[in-house]
Amino acid sequence: MDVEFINPFLTSILNVLKTMAQLDATAGTPTLKKSEVACGDVTGLIGMTGEKTRGTLAITFSASTILEITKRMIGEEQDKVNDTVTDMAGEITNMVTGGAKKLLSEKGYSFDMAIPSVVAGKDHVVVHKSKSPVIMVPFKTEAGDFFIEICFE
Amino acid sequence: MDVEFINPFLTSILNVLKTMAQLDATAGTPTLKKSEVACGDVTGLIGMTGEKTRGTLAITFSASTILEITKRMIGEEQDKVNDTVTDMAGEITNMVTGGAKKLLSEKGYSFDMAIPSVVAGKDHVVVHKSKSPVIMVPFKTEAGDFFIEICFE
Repeated sequence: MDVEFINPFLTSILNVLKTMAQLDATAGTPTLKKSEVACGDVTGLIGMTGEKTRGTLAITFSASTILEITKRMIGEEQDKVNDTVTDMAGEITNMVTGGAKKLLSEKGYSFDMAIPSVVAGKDHVVVHKSKSPVIMVPFKTEAGDFFIEICFE
Repeated sequence: MDVEFINPFLTSILNVLKTMAQLDATAGTPTLKKSEVACGDVTGLIGMTGEKTRGTLAITFSASTILEITKRMIGEEQDKVNDTVTDMAGEITNMVTGGAKKLLSEKGYSFDMAIPSVVAGKDHVVVHKSKSPVIMVPFKTEAGDFFIEICFE
């Protein structure tokens, strides 16, 4: 998997959070995801398929982080992870992937996006079933931390 | 969403469990998934994209059901949801989708499959972020119950 494939997702998530939640995020060092997995409370997941590649993106938040991001996006506080909050996680996942798709298409890579899913449940883990490496990138923001996982074959 | 699109997945999951786990499953009545969501402990998820459609499939098991199915698939007992168990959930998801893809291609529908992901975490829920209806189908087996959710746009 080429770093050329990863960077557009990192750029896109910074754009989406800045635009939608007036939130600055800082990417940490990308690492290969090992079998000890990081866990979170709300994950947006989306599959991607292209002529020569297929992949998956997961964006995993703690409950407090996605609650704060939701508040910034819609201007209304939610007291728990409800439909509004999972909607925002799905919307972020969709927009990040759409943004990366646009950036990658400018480089001559194209892919189609499947329907995003959102998983909500305390301390769940996500495992990507591929022989290709999974890249994990942590992010820090004022609203709390989150991480993304990307896998392309 | 056409029932023509759903049935191949139901047929495929019966085949996969029969072949891989010597397990007979019985499908219950398909229902439209409402906002009150069913929860589970291990979910296999896969995105699909085609020229005219995109979709997602989720297969959600209780821990006891996937542990028993894993035991039947590999002949070895696992004491908890570990990598072997999530591997089996991913494998089932992949095989069910591959089987349905084959059946649908015979009817002239084609789609590509993204990389399957597996989510593990007690009592998580999966939400499909689409305006199209989500069909939920419960299954009963000797190993316990599980359900699938399918959404196509």
